[in-house]
Amino acid sequence: MRVLLIGASGTIGSKVYERLEKQHEVIRAGRSGADVTVDITDEESIRAMYEQVGKIDAVINASGRAGFAPLEELTPEKNELGLMSKLKGQINLVLLGIPYVKDHGSFTLTTGVMMDDPIPQGASAAMANGAVRSFVKASAIEMPRGIRINAVSPTVLEESYEKLGSFFKGFQPVAGEKVALAYSKSAEGMQTGQNYEVYE
Amino acid sequence: MRVLLIGASGTIGSKVYERLEKQHEVIRAGRSGADVTVDITDEESIRAMYEQVGKIDAVINASGRAGFAPLEELTPEKNELGLMSKLKGQINLVLLGIPYVKDHGSFTLTTGVMMDDPIPQGASAAMANGAVRSFVKASAIEMPRGIRINAVSPTVLEESYEKLGSFFKGFQPVAGEKVALAYSKSAEGMQTGQNYEVYE
Ligand SMILES: NC(=O)c1ccc[n+]([C@@H]2O[C@H](COP(=O)([O-])OP(=O)(O)OC[C@H]3O[C@@H](n4cnc5c(N)ncnc54)[C@H](OP(=O)(O)O)[C@@H]3O)[C@@H](O)[C@H]2O)c1
Ligand SMILES: NC(=O)c1ccc[n+]([C@@H]2O[C@H](COP(=O)([O-])OP(=O)(O)OC[C@H]3O[C@@H](n4cnc5c(N)ncnc54)[C@H](OP(=O)(O)O)[C@@H]3O)[C@@H](O)[C@H]2O)c1
Repeated sequence: MRVLLIGASGTIGSKVYERLEKQHEVIRAGRSGADVTVDITDEESIRAMYEQVGKIDAVINASGRAGFAPLEELTPEKNELGLMSKLKGQINLVLLGIPYVKDHGSFTLTTGVMMDDPIPQGASAAMANGAVRSFVKASAIEMPRGIRINAVSPTVLEESYEKLGSFFKGFQPVAGEKVALAYSKSAEGMQTGQNYEVYE
Repeated sequence: MRVLLIGASGTIGSKVYERLEKQHEVIRAGRSGADVTVDITDEESIRAMYEQVGKIDAVINASGRAGFAPLEELTPEKNELGLMSKLKGQINLVLLGIPYVKDHGSFTLTTGVMMDDPIPQGASAAMANGAVRSFVKASAIEMPRGIRINAVSPTVLEESYEKLGSFFKGFQPVAGEKVALAYSKSAEGMQTGQNYEVYE
């Protein structure tokens, strides 16, 4: 398969890359991507990436940011990062990417556990996660040419626990390798409309 | 209770109004609202509404729009209505409204069945619904002063079936009165973080 992996240099993306690169051609994208640069908050940048990359079998996105803030400090402005990056960025990767995905190809997006098991300061990220989960489920029924779409919803990764653990008190972190399996199931399997929970 | 009802003139809003107006002071808002005008897609307009209305016990939103389009025709532009209105409009009603809601008061937002039981052309609305459901669940744990927040997720209403029935083939419509009960449960009960499904 020809796989376009956005966020390839990240904590999750690098594990997905390791998992897939032996058997597939994996094109690594990101704002400072190794193979192609893209900023998912910028529609034109997404269009340019797809133009440059051409036809692919799978689009996997492991990028997307959201602001963390206590609810009473979460202004509409602070909510904008999650709206523009993790939410709209991921949706636009799909809306603009369909013509470039081959028949029976797939999209895999990223959500996260905070929508199901809320944490302090996580309302904006939960909003983005919930939007993506429901978009995936609804868009799956209308995908043309047998194209599939799923999301992966990781809990906090062992690899991120030093940085993020204080937000995830009491959560059991999971190994990045295990999270990468869910991306493999989505891109290399045949299911669609799923949100794969990797919560333990 | 002093209740601020946004979308009071709508199909759902008018049923909620009928249900609550005998026992509560209900302030009706909308772009051409009977008591106060507001456009939820405009942050400044939301701020002005709250300034005008002052302290309230409950904010109930039964407004918010999203575009319907076949997935392959759903451009980022067509997705914007759902993003700005049903999604961000509702979130901003909460973020900007907290200081005006009295201790132990509540917010009630509106989602919808398409996020759980997808329909053709419904991906943008599903996105908005999913975002609001997850925001409600996550923000509930951080609400100050005992403020509660829930959403109501209606299936298609009997009152809307003539207009919307062709999108909801095979769905059992429910009476608006029954949907209004869920808003009452949210505003007049004591639960928080819920998405009340009124699917049958
Ligand atoms: N790590 C966890 O424990 C965890 C748990 C649950 C969910 N998640 C979710 O998984 C996703 C990835 O998390 P992560 O921890 O792997 O993040 P990360 O280590 O910060 O990596 C982010 C990756 O995305 C790229 N990126 C960032 N902004 C971008 C943009 N606007 N356009 C294109 N690429 C962009 C980065 O590369 P450049 O800087 O070169 O752009 C990098 O490759 C996020 O949505 C996160 O919420 C993570
Ligand atoms: N009807 C159904 O079967 C059904 C089923 C599931 C979910 N829902 C959801 O429930 C919500 C209400 O649906 P509905 O059928 O009752 O809608 P509706 O009959 O079209 O009424 C919409 C109401 O919202 C107001 N409104 C519209 N845009 C607004 C804006 N930007 N700012 C402030 N107020 C605005 C309208 O008044 P003005 O024109 O004066 O602003 C009107 O009072 C929507 O989110 C819809 O998706 C409806």
